[in-house]
Amino acid sequence: MQLNGVQIMCSSELEEPLTYFLQSDLAAKGIEVRRRSDFDDVLTANILAQDANEIPDDMELTAYFAIGIEISDIISQIKAKLLELKNYGFKTDNVEFKVIQVCDKMWQNQWEKFYHRVDFSRSLAIVPEWECPKPLNPHQIVIKMNPKQAFGTGTHITTQLMLMVMERVLLSEMSVLDVGTGSGILSIVASKFGASNVCATDISDDAIASAKKNLALNDIDNVELKQANLLTGVNGKYDLILANMLAEILYQLIPHLSDHLARNGRVIMSGIDCEQLSRIEKLLSENGFTVSLKIQEKRWFCILVSQKSN
Amino acid sequence: MQLNGVQIMCSSELEEPLTYFLQSDLAAKGIEVRRRSDFDDVLTANILAQDANEIPDDMELTAYFAIGIEISDIISQIKAKLLELKNYGFKTDNVEFKVIQVCDKMWQNQWEKFYHRVDFSRSLAIVPEWECPKPLNPHQIVIKMNPKQAFGTGTHITTQLMLMVMERVLLSEMSVLDVGTGSGILSIVASKFGASNVCATDISDDAIASAKKNLALNDIDNVELKQANLLTGVNGKYDLILANMLAEILYQLIPHLSDHLARNGRVIMSGIDCEQLSRIEKLLSENGFTVSLKIQEKRWFCILVSQKSN
Repeated sequence: MQLNGVQIMCSSELEEPLTYFLQSDLAAKGIEVRRRSDFDDVLTANILAQDANEIPDDMELTAYFAIGIEISDIISQIKAKLLELKNYGFKTDNVEFKVIQVCDKMWQNQWEKFYHRVDFSRSLAIVPEWECPKPLNPHQIVIKMNPKQAFGTGTHITTQLMLMVMERVLLSEMSVLDVGTGSGILSIVASKFGASNVCATDISDDAIASAKKNLALNDIDNVELKQANLLTGVNGKYDLILANMLAEILYQLIPHLSDHLARNGRVIMSGIDCEQLSRIEKLLSENGFTVSLKIQEKRWFCILVSQKSN
Repeated sequence: MQLNGVQIMCSSELEEPLTYFLQSDLAAKGIEVRRRSDFDDVLTANILAQDANEIPDDMELTAYFAIGIEISDIISQIKAKLLELKNYGFKTDNVEFKVIQVCDKMWQNQWEKFYHRVDFSRSLAIVPEWECPKPLNPHQIVIKMNPKQAFGTGTHITTQLMLMVMERVLLSEMSVLDVGTGSGILSIVASKFGASNVCATDISDDAIASAKKNLALNDIDNVELKQANLLTGVNGKYDLILANMLAEILYQLIPHLSDHLARNGRVIMSGIDCEQLSRIEKLLSENGFTVSLKIQEKRWFCILVSQKSN
């Protein structure tokens, strides 16, 4: 099989929003990122001039699509998205596009070259299926992932901030609701962290298939997968709700959180751009919630949300 | 032995800054805190009216001092501090003081009643010497503390945020410098998290004695204690510098960090009030640093600081 690819040379600021958009909205089959900063150490160590020419000025992001997808349409949609991101204050000048074609096998190799183990913290590592799952220390939990099919493989800032708060919050046997599970990563971590039961929803067929595969990879049997639009068809109340998604979708979710939150239950939200935080906080307050912890990395916020005491 | 105490009825917002001040500046031997919110569940469960009278309106903070200390002086100094905190935007209206006396034995009982295990996260618990050090799960590291002598026993927000970032950063065998170690808690955690060697400084005799005791309690042998004012007399360079202290002291520390930071080394700073963050960030930038992660809880910030790439 052959794959179409589009290579985007742009500011590394755009990595998260573009990746999100390419995977969620444009159904990219895979994304590769090369940043100049990844090569800084090599450069200072006297890299050969001809190799240096291949290194991107700032970032080179390559997205792969199944054959049959019209790449010119894809580029038009990316350009529209860039205009929107410009309004949020992102740097979108001097973006360049290049169309490429690769055969599936070559892409597989490329993929495996760029997806590596993430030692997320002392207590958690996310390892691609094809790498050795040895823990860094006796206390570390290792999650295996096949990162090919859906968003959320532990390399994105929004997921990493979410995991940081989960490590702090998931102390006892909680019931957990994971809205928009994608690859299933947060449900797998919740289960490994001792959740009593997890309900994971996603609207996309691909996500459900990918989550199912990743749950099996990690021998998880207490996660119920549900194909659903956000909370539609979800019953019961949960001690912890996880929502790692774009702020636009969080806006829709917030008014329905109370219906699914147990007494003293909490919510962790990630995927919030700094420009959107104040609107999220206002909406939370109007719906009886308060923000008890905030983490920021680059432009991204993750927040821990509690019910206001009456 | 008898102890003097002063009971302060005030807004729970003041818990951290007052505790810090009472322990660091006024050498309080111990602090107890009772918040109304701690009793909320009990109240809704039909508590008897006479018991409810004993519950503080918002927070009751009791500080104990050795006999011989003039409590009226202490109260004057607290009042001056409250004026300063008011300028930072804290609620300082309607603060009431009450002088109390207790015998040492009674205080010991009170103390043990109020100091409890903190299951800080899935991977770390801080347990007072007299409680059972059983981990919550097989992955949890348990630190034993005798919390009586110095600031920093894991119950303060500033320490907890620091620990959150340490869990994320301390992956490999790093050398660590802990400036203003207090009870020694951060050095003990760093050592348990696999630091190759730790140098811990503090200017106070009490802190050094307390840290020594706590290191022994946890069988730690790779922490070097040094009685020193910040970095004075500290030699060598470290992969990670920990500085959990008031922003006023961080200002003094920042210009000297580079001298003690290894290549690609990082700094975690905690104890920063939200009003002081922008000054800290400016000073860091002027000294060649950039903030790569921020965590906020209530008014307190903890930041992860990296060297700007050249």
